[in-house]
Amino acid sequence: MKIASNNLLTLLDLAGTLVFAIEGAMIAIENELDLLGVMVLAFATALGGGMARDVLIGATPPEALRDWRYPSTALIGGVVAFTAHQLVQAVPHMVIVDLDAAGLALFAVAGTEKTLRLKLPAFVAILMGAITAVGGGVVRDVLLTHVPAVLRIDVYATAALAGSATMVAARWARMSPRVAAAIGVMVCFGLRIVSVTEHWNLPRAIDYQW
Amino acid sequence: MKIASNNLLTLLDLAGTLVFAIEGAMIAIENELDLLGVMVLAFATALGGGMARDVLIGATPPEALRDWRYPSTALIGGVVAFTAHQLVQAVPHMVIVDLDAAGLALFAVAGTEKTLRLKLPAFVAILMGAITAVGGGVVRDVLLTHVPAVLRIDVYATAALAGSATMVAARWARMSPRVAAAIGVMVCFGLRIVSVTEHWNLPRAIDYQW
Amino acid sequence: MKIASNNLLTLLDLAGTLVFAIEGAMIAIENELDLLGVMVLAFATALGGGMARDVLIGATPPEALRDWRYPSTALIGGVVAFTAHQLVQAVPHMVIVDLDAAGLALFAVAGTEKTLRLKLPAFVAILMGAITAVGGGVVRDVLLTHVPAVLRIDVYATAALAGSATMVAARWARMSPRVAAAIGVMVCFGLRIVSVTEHWNLPRAIDYQW
Repeated sequence: MKIASNNLLTLLDLAGTLVFAIEGAMIAIENELDLLGVMVLAFATALGGGMARDVLIGATPPEALRDWRYPSTALIGGVVAFTAHQLVQAVPHMVIVDLDAAGLALFAVAGTEKTLRLKLPAFVAILMGAITAVGGGVVRDVLLTHVPAVLRIDVYATAALAGSATMVAARWARMSPRVAAAIGVMVCFGLRIVSVTEHWNLPRAIDYQW
Repeated sequence: MKIASNNLLTLLDLAGTLVFAIEGAMIAIENELDLLGVMVLAFATALGGGMARDVLIGATPPEALRDWRYPSTALIGGVVAFTAHQLVQAVPHMVIVDLDAAGLALFAVAGTEKTLRLKLPAFVAILMGAITAVGGGVVRDVLLTHVPAVLRIDVYATAALAGSATMVAARWARMSPRVAAAIGVMVCFGLRIVSVTEHWNLPRAIDYQW
Repeated sequence: MKIASNNLLTLLDLAGTLVFAIEGAMIAIENELDLLGVMVLAFATALGGGMARDVLIGATPPEALRDWRYPSTALIGGVVAFTAHQLVQAVPHMVIVDLDAAGLALFAVAGTEKTLRLKLPAFVAILMGAITAVGGGVVRDVLLTHVPAVLRIDVYATAALAGSATMVAARWARMSPRVAAAIGVMVCFGLRIVSVTEHWNLPRAIDYQW
């Protein structure tokens, strides 16, 4: 049962890795980078968040380097995007948003779960969930000298924080790790998708004129 | 006495954290980021330097994540800046410069002190003092795709290096940790303020034409 | 014999550090940064790759901080470039390319060697070789808000990856560490130089239209 749960978590984590690798590679292709640049951005987007988390919580070398399945998945994502970029570009925008939201949710929950297992405090686990989810995109955007999407896109990191926090709360309420993770994924995914379709924005300081 | 000294150091460190968090948040507000962006830059500016130091010296998870008072202080700074930004903007420029110089000095000394306690060499302690002091600002500027202030502003990181080096020298001269820290703070703060009021510049290579 | 081999490796590593420090400093001078900025970029370019490697593989504090010869060499490189920048600028472009390729090859091999000694998997050692070789340049370019050279220049990180991979393969073929390192250096250096003189490019996704 424990193993099955771990297997499921790993499978979901690898699915998120594949989605993020393809996204990073596609952005590299749009920026007309060469094969190496495409691979660097595929790896950075897919593995950067988890590596930042592992470096911060002291779990080095990062899982993305110790477990060959993570770099292999990122490599596959990069190669698929590079060779089949015309197919990938034909994917409807809303499907991309859905897959990205799924990757965000899976990474947030996986990052929170890993931090909790190391007996670190709950607020650290919530922060690490968000860093796992958005860190790869931040590295990718910094390398392209873009202001990171996390600072520009409404309700993106916020959704990751909400999913991680809900998962921690569910664990406090003595739900099983698997149920808590499922609730966290649903909250993050749902909040992200609803915010896109409903054009939700976070408040800006300019709204608080006296 | 030991505890009192630690308490004082922590109190000063938290004061620096608050100042840097408000500064980071105000820059986010000037860049019209939303609430999440304001919080990210408040955290990055206030905690980024100490986190970079702790990751480099192998003291993970970083103090900023293990001690709830640091993220709480950064959160308060971000919320204060967000809700009261018109009040903060009314603060005279020279007061901001003074507070920033104080934060710089406190972080430089705290970073040097922590590195010395881990029995690392003196020059590492001086470098880590400077990284603690300017690292958060570098992370903030990189996220906003600005060339970091530390590369543009004259006598900023230099003041941090001078304060850290003076503190190490005072410890070599067998002064008590508390006195050495006080001297380090005064040198860094004084050098920064004098360089602003006197418009001191560091030399540029262009000045060395033959 | 073991010690002699180590000494040789360290000497080559320090030579690479000097070359990269001078390069970083010269780019800072071209960007009209002051003395501190020149030193920051000299240190970042020369030591950033090795520090990123050591943080990722958990070998903290990084060798660049524990072994005083590395920061001292970076300091010398920065000072030389700052005071003698007119001499350095007179160096022919192809000599710069040769020295940079040599630094790239030495760092790739040194990073791979260090990772293998920590008993990490071969693919991690290859990746860490490349990160050691190009990481400093990435940090430098990010600080200057340039898209990193590694994403723009054809066959640069690729040469580092090829050199590291060849070295690992030579070790698998039971060659001595010294011979394997020499082969790795020659492959990386040769591939880099040939790609410059022959204007080799990596493929772009745009070439794969159907």
